[in-house]
Amino acid sequence: MKKAILLIIDGLGDLPTPKSPLQAAKKPNLDRLANKGITGMMSPVKRYIVPGSDVAHLNILGYDPSLFYCGRGPLEALGLGIKLQEGDISFRANFATFENNKITDRRAGRIETSIAAALSKYLPTKIDDVQVIFKNSAEHRGALVLRGAGLSSNVSPTDPHGDDFEECHPLDNTKEAKKTAEIINKFTKIAIQKLSSAPENKRNTPANIILLRGAGPFSSVPSFYERFGLNAVCVAGGALYKGVASYLGMDVLLVPGATGDKNTNLEAKAKAALKAVVEYDMVFMHIKLCDSAGHDGDFNSKKNGIERIDAIIPILEKSGACIVITGDHSTPYSLKAHSGHEVPILVYGGERKDSVKKFDELSCAAGGLGHIRGKDIIPLILNITQRAEKYGS
Amino acid sequence: MKKAILLIIDGLGDLPTPKSPLQAAKKPNLDRLANKGITGMMSPVKRYIVPGSDVAHLNILGYDPSLFYCGRGPLEALGLGIKLQEGDISFRANFATFENNKITDRRAGRIETSIAAALSKYLPTKIDDVQVIFKNSAEHRGALVLRGAGLSSNVSPTDPHGDDFEECHPLDNTKEAKKTAEIINKFTKIAIQKLSSAPENKRNTPANIILLRGAGPFSSVPSFYERFGLNAVCVAGGALYKGVASYLGMDVLLVPGATGDKNTNLEAKAKAALKAVVEYDMVFMHIKLCDSAGHDGDFNSKKNGIERIDAIIPILEKSGACIVITGDHSTPYSLKAHSGHEVPILVYGGERKDSVKKFDELSCAAGGLGHIRGKDIIPLILNITQRAEKYGS
Repeated sequence: MKKAILLIIDGLGDLPTPKSPLQAAKKPNLDRLANKGITGMMSPVKRYIVPGSDVAHLNILGYDPSLFYCGRGPLEALGLGIKLQEGDISFRANFATFENNKITDRRAGRIETSIAAALSKYLPTKIDDVQVIFKNSAEHRGALVLRGAGLSSNVSPTDPHGDDFEECHPLDNTKEAKKTAEIINKFTKIAIQKLSSAPENKRNTPANIILLRGAGPFSSVPSFYERFGLNAVCVAGGALYKGVASYLGMDVLLVPGATGDKNTNLEAKAKAALKAVVEYDMVFMHIKLCDSAGHDGDFNSKKNGIERIDAIIPILEKSGACIVITGDHSTPYSLKAHSGHEVPILVYGGERKDSVKKFDELSCAAGGLGHIRGKDIIPLILNITQRAEKYGS
Repeated sequence: MKKAILLIIDGLGDLPTPKSPLQAAKKPNLDRLANKGITGMMSPVKRYIVPGSDVAHLNILGYDPSLFYCGRGPLEALGLGIKLQEGDISFRANFATFENNKITDRRAGRIETSIAAALSKYLPTKIDDVQVIFKNSAEHRGALVLRGAGLSSNVSPTDPHGDDFEECHPLDNTKEAKKTAEIINKFTKIAIQKLSSAPENKRNTPANIILLRGAGPFSSVPSFYERFGLNAVCVAGGALYKGVASYLGMDVLLVPGATGDKNTNLEAKAKAALKAVVEYDMVFMHIKLCDSAGHDGDFNSKKNGIERIDAIIPILEKSGACIVITGDHSTPYSLKAHSGHEVPILVYGGERKDSVKKFDELSCAAGGLGHIRGKDIIPLILNITQRAEKYGS
């Protein structure tokens, strides 16, 4: 049976100004695949819904987020390699700078990863009867997990996305939510105290508080293999994407140099995918940099990201696998935010051809796949790799 | 009000190698209808789902298979003209060759229909308190019906689709499933005994066992006429398709020469459809031969089948009816199996025009209907024949 590589270019779609980054980029390899294969437009969730990357990835990978979305916290924690247990409450965490009850820098001046790692050691590992697990990732980012009896994810974030710091409070009247909010507030106080006095924190923007958001409970889900019969592996840099894959029971390759930012080593990732496709039925490969450029409002950086991705396409082609390339949503650079615009998709190998010759928003809208949705992608892959089970006889 | 002919070309869709059979075939009449009418692509069930012909036909005829699929057995039995009663358990049956507990030929050398008919008379008509109804159709094919109290369709098939014969066993712990499995095993023993000693069976591949699969209970469903207000008739050769029509309460025309195989008389079927459209609102016409060619991996035979179908189109045109032509699924000859690729569709009369000039997978993907699903077809027919009821006022 055939193999498949699903390449998700985060935030791929854009708007014409007058050209979109995809239209402006020189991308002979992506265009060649579009020309030889079939194209279309894809709504990651439903038409015009603006998805977060977590929700979009779940839907594209065949997990209806209305049934399977667990919040961002558990996905971040899983992506950092924390082995979650049923009932664990996880949060996305930021090292931040806190002065006079105000958050003066939500990212503590994008603190270096090595300093964040050193500071993590001052954080408490137990509060009352609750085990506390903290792990930092790139720069200011990290995840916090609370493990113990009687906890709830229904508590407010302490990350205000604004200036004023707010204590955590329960969002319902259960004793579980009250207990969890108390633990978080104790954790925050201890963190402020310990981090403020840490010698590593002698800097202009000290990382003297941990902000939390995206609370979610962990609960295991039927694995991707159980549900689709595909033995899949993830090649990604960002913790969230590795976390989604881990949540679905996929293996996650740790590729040196795959950082999930603009310094990521795309060639190393492509070579890892090429190697992995020998052993696995499907490689889910994720590249973040176009989304980051979109959020930064940087046309040239998004265009350049596409050109860098184009350069590694020949490595993926060597696999002989069916190749599906799309995004998890649009991040138009002019909006500096996700949008609900459809994302171009190309399918090379196993599918029909159409008359579209280029891979961009304008060309693919006339493609032979028409408009599909995120949830159609795994059935499409099962079909083109001849793995789909017949319905009826 | 206008009439409609819905022509389902079984297994119509294919893949380009570099041309598909549809692209390679000379089909001036189908192309003319595509040129004068409107085209699109159709997913028989949902996008990329690989349907069996039974499930696909139910959905295309407006019966959601998740609600109305009864298994293949009842549809085959109905197609052979057996009048099913509520609770009857039916199976698709094969005459086969059995030696030393192995199935050496699942089709008993494609036994002649007349010999199968003669052999049918040796089969039991009652086992314990259960009435047994067997009817043979073309070659090795047939249907078996069990009628009596306390039966279940939740039993295993005795048709192994492989070498080793397996007894029937219950698939749950109910006494109904146990009883049904016992009756089937008694039937099988008697069949082996009686058929082995039958003088008609002196041949190299004796038809000395009956293999069963597709068990299903019969339960009547609201008729096609009740649900859609269309007085419809079926023109088909294959038992399954006549069975689907019968299940939905359509009349079924018995057309001499309509055999459901490559020797079928297409002209006789077209003339029957032309005549029937005077009396009926809708003719559901089914042609099998392209699917058979796809399963056999025979490009030329599929292409030739399309050309034979093209030749009868002018007969259908004489009716003045709206004509809808599509397939129930793709059967790419290169895969020798059903696939989840969309099927081209053309609608002539009552609909708009588009700029597509040819009826094939590449051309219709750019058609004005876009991508529709099987369940859209009956509403489409109601619309173009001006029979659709207004929703709202």
